[in-house]
Amino acid sequence: MLPGVGVFGTGSTARVLVPLLKAEGFEVHALWGRSEEEAGCLAKELGIPFHTSRSDDVLLHQDVDLVCIYIPPSMTRQIAVKALGIGKNVVCEKAATAVDSFKMVTAARYYPQLLSIMGNTLRFLPAFVAMRQLLVEGYVGEMQVCDVRVYGPSLLDQSYGWTCEELMGGGGLHTVGSAIIDLLSYLTGARAQRVHGLLRTFVQQNGLIRGIRRVTSDDFCFFQMLMGGTGSRSGGVCCTVTLNFNMPGSFVHEVMVVGSTGRLVARGTELYGQRNGSNGEELLLGDSGWVGPELKEMPLPHLRGLSSMVKALRESFQAHEERRSWAQGPVAMAPTFEDGLYVQTVVEAVKRSSCSGEWECVEIMSEEPDPNHNLCEALQRNKN
Amino acid sequence: MLPGVGVFGTGSTARVLVPLLKAEGFEVHALWGRSEEEAGCLAKELGIPFHTSRSDDVLLHQDVDLVCIYIPPSMTRQIAVKALGIGKNVVCEKAATAVDSFKMVTAARYYPQLLSIMGNTLRFLPAFVAMRQLLVEGYVGEMQVCDVRVYGPSLLDQSYGWTCEELMGGGGLHTVGSAIIDLLSYLTGARAQRVHGLLRTFVQQNGLIRGIRRVTSDDFCFFQMLMGGTGSRSGGVCCTVTLNFNMPGSFVHEVMVVGSTGRLVARGTELYGQRNGSNGEELLLGDSGWVGPELKEMPLPHLRGLSSMVKALRESFQAHEERRSWAQGPVAMAPTFEDGLYVQTVVEAVKRSSCSGEWECVEIMSEEPDPNHNLCEALQRNKN
Repeated sequence: MLPGVGVFGTGSTARVLVPLLKAEGFEVHALWGRSEEEAGCLAKELGIPFHTSRSDDVLLHQDVDLVCIYIPPSMTRQIAVKALGIGKNVVCEKAATAVDSFKMVTAARYYPQLLSIMGNTLRFLPAFVAMRQLLVEGYVGEMQVCDVRVYGPSLLDQSYGWTCEELMGGGGLHTVGSAIIDLLSYLTGARAQRVHGLLRTFVQQNGLIRGIRRVTSDDFCFFQMLMGGTGSRSGGVCCTVTLNFNMPGSFVHEVMVVGSTGRLVARGTELYGQRNGSNGEELLLGDSGWVGPELKEMPLPHLRGLSSMVKALRESFQAHEERRSWAQGPVAMAPTFEDGLYVQTVVEAVKRSSCSGEWECVEIMSEEPDPNHNLCEALQRNKN
Repeated sequence: MLPGVGVFGTGSTARVLVPLLKAEGFEVHALWGRSEEEAGCLAKELGIPFHTSRSDDVLLHQDVDLVCIYIPPSMTRQIAVKALGIGKNVVCEKAATAVDSFKMVTAARYYPQLLSIMGNTLRFLPAFVAMRQLLVEGYVGEMQVCDVRVYGPSLLDQSYGWTCEELMGGGGLHTVGSAIIDLLSYLTGARAQRVHGLLRTFVQQNGLIRGIRRVTSDDFCFFQMLMGGTGSRSGGVCCTVTLNFNMPGSFVHEVMVVGSTGRLVARGTELYGQRNGSNGEELLLGDSGWVGPELKEMPLPHLRGLSSMVKALRESFQAHEERRSWAQGPVAMAPTFEDGLYVQTVVEAVKRSSCSGEWECVEIMSEEPDPNHNLCEALQRNKN
């Protein structure tokens, strides 16, 4: 039986998500927005019976068993951890920092019976599902290089907000790079050991953001990841990722994996391949045409990925009678909160590298840093 | 009046160059090859009256006024410097090291009345001539990012040789990267100040190179250049270059410049552009079809560039009565030996960066390093 859903967020993702949930048979009972007006407006538009600007009203709502959190990164941790504590299943977007991600991991570990997955949606895109399968089957032989390019228009909101602020989780690396970092670990079956990166904010002001305000989040980001891993399939793979959001009027989303005997390329939502020795590329998975909602703000790979994830959620919950129970199978490939922590750790290492100019190691947090650490040290020093 | 030409080399470039020279009205009088057989064979094939394996026989040949040097990098410096010393005009490929390049610069400075240009041919490709013109005219606004990708099949020769050896000037960075480094300084009007790079040799052995022999030259190279420069047109441009020669059956040659108000992309030999606010790309310069010789080993942009360079050489020499005199104008955009030294310096900085993992400064040699430097230091230390 499908669980009742509560949605956090009134942005473009939430706006797309609700119709997708409804199309799969989920009932969306409650919507949270930062202001009553925003929430009320979107709830009316999408036909959601209840709206609020108080998070507890959604979390404690008796018909809500699954909480979908698509809000600014800096607010995600608080809602996600609380939702799990109240016993709700959680699908959520990335948090703003590794510390926040670590707190989410701790909560998810504490409630293993609850569903807790990251809403990074590229893993569910059929092109990437097929790509991973072909990589496992050895289509490209030994993997050597992954090369990813995402080009598009500015990611900034119309008005000044978190998308402009690096520390609030804005910028191409955090917003789009996160999904790519997750995807590459899914495709290669390995994780980044060392990273090197370069971030730039070419457009610091525009017609809407001016005066004393400046954009601090990156609109160009380039990074490399050296993947580790025990299997011969993945050890030593070099990943290069170029993100450029100063290209209005275009959208390029290309993920290429080159190996010893061939290569696979996903362009947008289509998958192409070429084996060494063959004369040209073959289309391995076409796009049969998208019939769902379309959004200028959300590129098709993300939109389709989101749609496939919602389908997987439906299958997962449908498998059980009890509306809060779910089956592992259909969502087994979804990124966990642990994956979310890994991604956030890589993002922060790339940012460090951009400052230091050096290769930075990716070291996953294993315990929460003590917020009083510096204070304690100072006291300690005084005592001696 | 056109000068008589002597050609050094029996490789793929020499094989293409001779027909191009003849087509423009040059007479090719002499051909040098490493062995009498190689030289004799190609001379017969191309209808060149004289061939030899002794370099002086070409350099001192009385009908040769222009020497074209397309031989392995480690031998280039010696021939080029000697040719200038004998009073011949020189077009040549890159040398193997910055020290060699510096010696060539010294010779070129000593004989300013002689023509001395690098045979890096991408500058002459009409698509790049048009691209530079549009950049100067402000098509893209303030330049931000250059993104270059060259993908293709292996650069290794059929048998073991200099192409396999990093120290001999083999590898993607040295062979193809050089031309890209030169092109980017031509397009941006700036030079790299700091570089970061990563080189890999994924295929160390193959069916022909085995046993104790290993390939040491790179088949994958990725580097970034931060450009300096005084003009606002070029300061702070980030260049990213990806070279991958593990992709048999494909050839991608894409050079993109993104700026504040638009972008330009050269794909192969065609130029496309898109201004911010417009709906799609416009074709700015098509390819009217290539009617010259075709070669598997030489991609079309290089082939066409070479052809345009030969045309420019013809115009340059035609302007004067005396067959050794030439006009600056038609070859003004050609890379000088000074440009060659700059390119070689960047190549070596990228290699250093790949070892150190750090950003490396590009510092152009201003005096020849003393080969006895270490010895002198040791003596000095002993004395004290």
